[in-house]
Amino acid sequence: MTKVTAQMSISLDGFYTGPRDTRDPNDMSGWMRGPEAPGFFRITRWAVDAMAWRERQGYAGGEQSIDSEIIEETFAAAGAYVMGRRMFDAGEVPWGEEPPFRAPVFVVTHRSREVLERQGGTSFTFVTEGVERAIELAREAAAGKDVAMAGGGELLRQVLAAGLLDQLELHIAPVLLGDGQRLFGPSLGLGADDGIELVPTRVVEAPTVTHIRYAVAGRSKLVLDDRGASGDLVGPSADGT
Amino acid sequence: MTKVTAQMSISLDGFYTGPRDTRDPNDMSGWMRGPEAPGFFRITRWAVDAMAWRERQGYAGGEQSIDSEIIEETFAAAGAYVMGRRMFDAGEVPWGEEPPFRAPVFVVTHRSREVLERQGGTSFTFVTEGVERAIELAREAAAGKDVAMAGGGELLRQVLAAGLLDQLELHIAPVLLGDGQRLFGPSLGLGADDGIELVPTRVVEAPTVTHIRYAVAGRSKLVLDDRGASGDLVGPSADGT
Repeated sequence: MTKVTAQMSISLDGFYTGPRDTRDPNDMSGWMRGPEAPGFFRITRWAVDAMAWRERQGYAGGEQSIDSEIIEETFAAAGAYVMGRRMFDAGEVPWGEEPPFRAPVFVVTHRSREVLERQGGTSFTFVTEGVERAIELAREAAAGKDVAMAGGGELLRQVLAAGLLDQLELHIAPVLLGDGQRLFGPSLGLGADDGIELVPTRVVEAPTVTHIRYAVAGRSKLVLDDRGASGDLVGPSADGT
Repeated sequence: MTKVTAQMSISLDGFYTGPRDTRDPNDMSGWMRGPEAPGFFRITRWAVDAMAWRERQGYAGGEQSIDSEIIEETFAAAGAYVMGRRMFDAGEVPWGEEPPFRAPVFVVTHRSREVLERQGGTSFTFVTEGVERAIELAREAAAGKDVAMAGGGELLRQVLAAGLLDQLELHIAPVLLGDGQRLFGPSLGLGADDGIELVPTRVVEAPTVTHIRYAVAGRSKLVLDDRGASGDLVGPSADGT
């Protein structure tokens, strides 16, 4: 059955890239000198070092590791992608004639535009009716495989908040950055007594990153408990003497 | 050899408790109705459900689980504790005559005060010469065991920023809270090109929490890389055609 999935690399303090760069996203050499790059490069290095990632980009080398297997599995599971407009703008030029997706990509945007057909199975369809409609179209295109949220963080928060996400996999890079763009935050729109509950379904330990996969259970009230006090009291201090 | 360790329960979005409550920390029943409690209770529930935690508090019941084993191990490894003043203020009354530490505790504070001797091996020594001195005193008292930072979050950030921490274990509760007090943040004082690097040394998968232990490697410059482009190019798109 088709699941709506997302996966993202984050630092241990919850950033998926450095502080926001306001430059033109197509100015790659400027971006490389900007505030986003150092954090983004550090967080995603585990993937760049992996053979499966490099193969998709057309580069040789890389390690055949558990990290590489996870990347392979992630690509194989996705039958279609949904992507934010900002991520598309940043990727359009560098991805070139044969983008790494090799599947239909639905871009959530306000500007309508002709479908872009690329080599290797990738197409970009521009959806102006919102993320829910984009997921619907991607679901039809996925032919029973998963619909993967390709990013960025804003779109991911949006589908989480709207209860549209079934599975989230985080790749936690063991580094503290102190500042940057957070994957999660107040824009989830949770009240003081609300949480979004998840269930860890798979944890993979690798030398330079930890992969945790979660099933998203959904919104739930946060409740207080009695901190164990309703159990029988035992021991010398428990009766207050 | 004595290590300086810390362990903390956090939500998947990096909070260790709900938004800060400005009430008198000794007003427990007020605190229970305040903004901190719902998040704090949710994040720490895995521990409250564990037999080893309940035993330390004088309560019966609880599960004999991998979570309980980790709590037991954590208590056993600590020969002495270092604690922030705010945490001590909040705990002094509820911990009662036999606090759960069963070891010397060094409280970092600006107000000097006589040593408090409690039952079961716990004592509270008030250190006015800063956290580094408190760690030094705890190290002497630990008799070869570890010095554990008991909390709270502010003290933990301080020892991380100062390079005083050797090991950090996070218990990641699978819930998004959206808001609260973050364990990590800008107060780590990291520059735009600086990170604090860690190395995951143990990952334990449990049904309702994920335990990740890290060795703290220390500050390091964040560097850009060539994203794999220095490898030989392969495939049809790699030469730009």
